[in-house]
Amino acid sequence: MDKLSNNTNKRTRIPTMITKPTLLLDKQKCKRNIAMMFSKAKTNHVSFRPHFKTHQSLEIGRWFKELGVDKITVSSLEMAQYFSTEWDDITVAFPVNILEIETINQLSEKITLQLLVESMETASYLALNTKHKIGIFIKIDVGYHRTGLSPTSTQQIDEILAEIRASSTLRFKGFLTHAGHTYLCRTKDEILSIHHTSRGILTGLKAKYTDRYPDLIISIGDTPSCSVADNFSGIDEIRPGNFVFYDLTQQQIGACSFDQIAVAMACPIVSIHPERNEVVIYGGGVHFAKDRLEVDPIGTIYGIVVEQIEERWGGPIPGMYLKSLSQEHGIISVPQPFITKYKIGDLLYILPVHSCMTANEMKCYKSQDEIISRF
Amino acid sequence: MDKLSNNTNKRTRIPTMITKPTLLLDKQKCKRNIAMMFSKAKTNHVSFRPHFKTHQSLEIGRWFKELGVDKITVSSLEMAQYFSTEWDDITVAFPVNILEIETINQLSEKITLQLLVESMETASYLALNTKHKIGIFIKIDVGYHRTGLSPTSTQQIDEILAEIRASSTLRFKGFLTHAGHTYLCRTKDEILSIHHTSRGILTGLKAKYTDRYPDLIISIGDTPSCSVADNFSGIDEIRPGNFVFYDLTQQQIGACSFDQIAVAMACPIVSIHPERNEVVIYGGGVHFAKDRLEVDPIGTIYGIVVEQIEERWGGPIPGMYLKSLSQEHGIISVPQPFITKYKIGDLLYILPVHSCMTANEMKCYKSQDEIISRF
Repeated sequence: MDKLSNNTNKRTRIPTMITKPTLLLDKQKCKRNIAMMFSKAKTNHVSFRPHFKTHQSLEIGRWFKELGVDKITVSSLEMAQYFSTEWDDITVAFPVNILEIETINQLSEKITLQLLVESMETASYLALNTKHKIGIFIKIDVGYHRTGLSPTSTQQIDEILAEIRASSTLRFKGFLTHAGHTYLCRTKDEILSIHHTSRGILTGLKAKYTDRYPDLIISIGDTPSCSVADNFSGIDEIRPGNFVFYDLTQQQIGACSFDQIAVAMACPIVSIHPERNEVVIYGGGVHFAKDRLEVDPIGTIYGIVVEQIEERWGGPIPGMYLKSLSQEHGIISVPQPFITKYKIGDLLYILPVHSCMTANEMKCYKSQDEIISRF
Repeated sequence: MDKLSNNTNKRTRIPTMITKPTLLLDKQKCKRNIAMMFSKAKTNHVSFRPHFKTHQSLEIGRWFKELGVDKITVSSLEMAQYFSTEWDDITVAFPVNILEIETINQLSEKITLQLLVESMETASYLALNTKHKIGIFIKIDVGYHRTGLSPTSTQQIDEILAEIRASSTLRFKGFLTHAGHTYLCRTKDEILSIHHTSRGILTGLKAKYTDRYPDLIISIGDTPSCSVADNFSGIDEIRPGNFVFYDLTQQQIGACSFDQIAVAMACPIVSIHPERNEVVIYGGGVHFAKDRLEVDPIGTIYGIVVEQIEERWGGPIPGMYLKSLSQEHGIISVPQPFITKYKIGDLLYILPVHSCMTANEMKCYKSQDEIISRF
């Protein structure tokens, strides 16, 4: 089954008994998500540089390697250091933090490193202080308005390009964006409309600069666009990350089905309150993180309870959702006819609202009797 | 200065240079908060059993020990295990998770352990499966409606008491509550009103059961009540936790002043957007957690920027607040006249909305050139 038997030291066999909040991973669903996105990239002739900030795990990274993936994206230099033991081509998709120049110089000596720049200040700093070759992407804001240069700021872009050209270590790689505003969409058409606009902006820039930089690439990132779109013409690289697990937000956006969500939190029931149709679980903000989702007609939810099939799961149980979180407590709303079904010590399986943040709270994943560690 | 010089192995001397999101601890403010609450308990003749879920640090725990504190509260059995190396009297203020019975038996062999019960089911399970003496508190719901028995559920209380009496390991300790609804208050009077009601409910129960259990105690918990109230008559024990650091929520509630907030996150600026009066910091949900606060007239905030005084800080800088968070990015709103003051690579110091959750995200605290580790 697993080709990497020399890596079994990374795994611990443990008894199947779950006693506290545990993040279950359905390996089959996860590998299916990976294969789907890999094959989508292949079909559309775009390079695949998956974002590893969602799973943050060397072992899950190896499932990508098995398919032939050879380059990745991460969101911090710390994470790049962690993955640099097994990956030698990494893009840090976060505006350069110049205070970490030592880490940048260490990493770029060892691996092929790409960084994101969106100001002259940072470009000049890197030109002066880097010691080894580094690929530079200019971050473009296609409408999310979090980071990046406006695509119309061609004067700034030209200045940065001149700075890069004059440097002996920096090399211009292309334009990169993250259309994070797709997370506000609630239909596929809305996602496709954003994707269409982003593609237009980026291919426009490519056309403008391709004479001077014939090798420049266009890199896009968000899981909703990469999941839903079928037209990647003009795009050279995709960097989705969340698709590895998906989550309730992606399901709500229309980027995945419930059946594709590959992680669920198992939480013990510690208290039952039939008088208000609630059970209390051991499982709080320190396990789920506190991302929320607005769902009609319920309102704010923090998770949805699914049917248990041993340590895997089926679809959502109607009306059962995580309605609030404190540090260690979670409150589950339970429809009145179901409440007598549950007893203290039972486990509930809960799909998370935002799998990146939930995975980040937990030290490891449990997949059947295997523990998969992470950064 | 420090009496515990034999514990210096717990500390690492590091260079003062901060390069990435770092949780700064102002030891002086923190020790002042501890001394204040310690002396308040003493003055009011209530026993002090501080909750350690906020700082989660053996080293900070020792600052309580220096004053003579000899018993603590935690929110999970895992945390009890961590602290049991230095503390031998611990209450786990969370409804018993019966799946962790092995940990319960291990801990209760080693230390004086108190657990919370609010159902016959859990009481019977413990009576059957515990091996060593355990103190049992019955959790009472004084209006927060998260966990606990209604104070009028005297039949259920009596049944649980009978179960405890029949057991050879369990011993009834008293009634415990957490008036978490004080977190919704916005004035001292509102907090005092809740405190007054809680005290009434609990002293009523005490009066009812004191003949049968002359040693029973009444234990209350929340930081807002413990900070603001001056009347603890009838209360035997207080268990506040958050006061050790305080935070913006407590300031907003009216439970502390800005000057008492003992932690701030130092975050590097990675991008500046004068066109929308924003700077982007390296510092996101994985550092701050995502608790939010509604503040008039701004709306939702995730933190407030304060003036820097080396690695300490002064008051809030008017108009500068953390307006949104993604996984690693934070967006700071900066009033237009100030924005030219900042450059990429500068640090901003930010007070957190909820210090318990923020501390939980970070591996350690930095207090000048000392690193203080945590669970």
